[in-house]
Amino acid sequence: MTDLQQYAVNVATKARAASRVLVAARGETKNLWLTKCAAAIRERRKELQAENQRDLDKAPEYGLTEAAIDRLELTDSRLESIATAIEEIIALPDPVGRVLGSNVRPNGLNVTKVRVPLGVIFFIYESRPNVTVDAAALCVKSGNAIILRGGKEAFHSNQALHALLSEILSEVGLPADAVQMVTTTDREAVGHFLKLGDEIDLTIPRGGKGLIQRVTADAAMPVLKHLDGVCHVYIDRSADISRAIEITVNSKAQRPGVCNAAESLLVHAAIATDFLPAVYDALSSAGVEIVGCERTREILPQVAAASEEDFRTEYLALKISVRVVDSTADAIEHVNKYGSGHTESIVTTDIASMQQFTTGCDSAAVIVNASTRFNDGGEFGLGAEIGISTDKFHARGPCGLEELTTYKYVAFGDGQIRE
Amino acid sequence: MTDLQQYAVNVATKARAASRVLVAARGETKNLWLTKCAAAIRERRKELQAENQRDLDKAPEYGLTEAAIDRLELTDSRLESIATAIEEIIALPDPVGRVLGSNVRPNGLNVTKVRVPLGVIFFIYESRPNVTVDAAALCVKSGNAIILRGGKEAFHSNQALHALLSEILSEVGLPADAVQMVTTTDREAVGHFLKLGDEIDLTIPRGGKGLIQRVTADAAMPVLKHLDGVCHVYIDRSADISRAIEITVNSKAQRPGVCNAAESLLVHAAIATDFLPAVYDALSSAGVEIVGCERTREILPQVAAASEEDFRTEYLALKISVRVVDSTADAIEHVNKYGSGHTESIVTTDIASMQQFTTGCDSAAVIVNASTRFNDGGEFGLGAEIGISTDKFHARGPCGLEELTTYKYVAFGDGQIRE
Repeated sequence: MTDLQQYAVNVATKARAASRVLVAARGETKNLWLTKCAAAIRERRKELQAENQRDLDKAPEYGLTEAAIDRLELTDSRLESIATAIEEIIALPDPVGRVLGSNVRPNGLNVTKVRVPLGVIFFIYESRPNVTVDAAALCVKSGNAIILRGGKEAFHSNQALHALLSEILSEVGLPADAVQMVTTTDREAVGHFLKLGDEIDLTIPRGGKGLIQRVTADAAMPVLKHLDGVCHVYIDRSADISRAIEITVNSKAQRPGVCNAAESLLVHAAIATDFLPAVYDALSSAGVEIVGCERTREILPQVAAASEEDFRTEYLALKISVRVVDSTADAIEHVNKYGSGHTESIVTTDIASMQQFTTGCDSAAVIVNASTRFNDGGEFGLGAEIGISTDKFHARGPCGLEELTTYKYVAFGDGQIRE
Repeated sequence: MTDLQQYAVNVATKARAASRVLVAARGETKNLWLTKCAAAIRERRKELQAENQRDLDKAPEYGLTEAAIDRLELTDSRLESIATAIEEIIALPDPVGRVLGSNVRPNGLNVTKVRVPLGVIFFIYESRPNVTVDAAALCVKSGNAIILRGGKEAFHSNQALHALLSEILSEVGLPADAVQMVTTTDREAVGHFLKLGDEIDLTIPRGGKGLIQRVTADAAMPVLKHLDGVCHVYIDRSADISRAIEITVNSKAQRPGVCNAAESLLVHAAIATDFLPAVYDALSSAGVEIVGCERTREILPQVAAASEEDFRTEYLALKISVRVVDSTADAIEHVNKYGSGHTESIVTTDIASMQQFTTGCDSAAVIVNASTRFNDGGEFGLGAEIGISTDKFHARGPCGLEELTTYKYVAFGDGQIRE
């Protein structure tokens, strides 16, 4: 075993041991930890910012863009947001131990289905240091031990935040190893962790598509994937045109760089002549570039042709592809063929179209008469999320505390044996 | 693309298309299909038995044991059991479309979480022809298309059953491709199906450990695993001795060849001197061979020494390993270290031990004062099962209709956009 392999095994073994304690931790203890963490982040602001400065100093060396450097900085208000986010997690109900169902059998055996933590979670992320705290808070609150593997660009910030989180775990009597951070920046280390299918119950990669695909290919354990969002807005023949325009523009342009922004617009042929020129003006005013199918271009000759590839593309930018379809069934077929199963919206006044579309689209969220931008843990009222799953297995859509748990059956008898 | 690859793609594409129709099928249509299938299995008995005879004729060629040949035979009473099993599935509630939760947001957006089918399921099995019907019935009732890949030993029986199931799908207006059977016995075909991660949502292998590990290693999609059952019975210091003996013997010997039979017995040191000689007599009378740890052998010098490997072994036979432990905590540690996360029982009269053991054992089912043999979909009151999952992700323990589904979010608005 190489040193790196041994390192991964040691970290994972400590995480497993911590998870055995966490599984029985009381909600009030976990909340006390969260409360103290929020307070410490506020109190130890200067210390955290000093470590953050070390990352900021190195940022040019890593070739970070201005925007990336900005996201990296732990300003006073960013630290306040991190503390506030913890407080939101405190307010969420503890999922562990909740009885999901029960069944008293004819022989008197009382079978209950109880929510329990998954165990050990390996969390790989490239993003800002606030994610360190968010992920740790969600995992520990749901009774899981977490192994954090952040990006090298935030190394010192993450180390400082981790030290704080871990120190307070001991202070409240929880195992310090419930939150561990991978201290080597050697990329090979990730591969060793991904092989530990017996020690780690779930890997969550958060970052670009390349990272997620690499992790999925290598992981010996389940992976909670957050892949791309090729989201659609479908304007049914019965749609109210001004509402359809508002929803289209909001879905596309309110924040084009996020996964629940719309990338494709499907328009029923019967409304296309009225709707397309109007939405063209509105989208153009919002700075959105439009590419369209042949039928779109008959009505809007000024737009460029959309290729087959366009309909599969997550632009994450002010650009949208448009296709005219002959029916709700055709819209559904397009969504299921070209989409990524993330979020679709229908604008309609017709009940049959609504039922057909919500049932037929094989996506994590189908939204009726509202913006695609609402598919989000916060907007759906689920509380903080650790990611938005584009898979169907285990969890789909926004993943919060409940999605970080599984269940077990506990059956109470008084001597029952099988005949 | 080779012919076999093309074949897999064609079958999977047809399954996906069928699943798009099934997702919206009514419960009464699916039940009508089931009703007609049960009737046809009874009516077309002779025809099914003729095809079954072809398999029986070939059985010696495949080197099947007497017991395996017996299990293969579709006697009148076996066919009647198959029909009865279908009727039990008819009686189960349709999981599809059930609202699992809802949340009206301050802005009026009404967010619902709705149960939906997984989509397309690839089912690989080695077992008896009744599994063909069971699996198809469970998948279609839960709105999924299924691709069946049975063993070559039951090829003609499976083909005949499949023809019947598929024919009646068309008869009731459901897509015939909702149930497909892989007609090539070329083992390479399985590998091609396992690569189709976009077309197939879940693979369920049912058979030996070798098959399951091979499938898991090769599959590009999630796999519902049913691995080994290294199940434990723990006798707490507070246990009632006669109850403890009854539960131990039943857990081990009532049907030793199944996954929820006990393989290991843990005994609290404080009760060992009283309990071990008594349980030795009872187990010996039931024909069970005992191997024990050093402390066991101090009390029962007549038993052979248990190796480290014994404690990890699923005997599936009349043999049990025994270890004396000093506390419930030690018992839990043993279970989590050596067990397979399947089923554990505790015999106790002490509430604290019960709570500690049920919380601490990281297993699909923890049973208090009853036999391990109760971990079973039927005994737990969940209805027919397609397998018992030893994983923690998505589904754990007995998997029935609900475990063959996922959910989606459907949100109803009236023009909401994000600010």
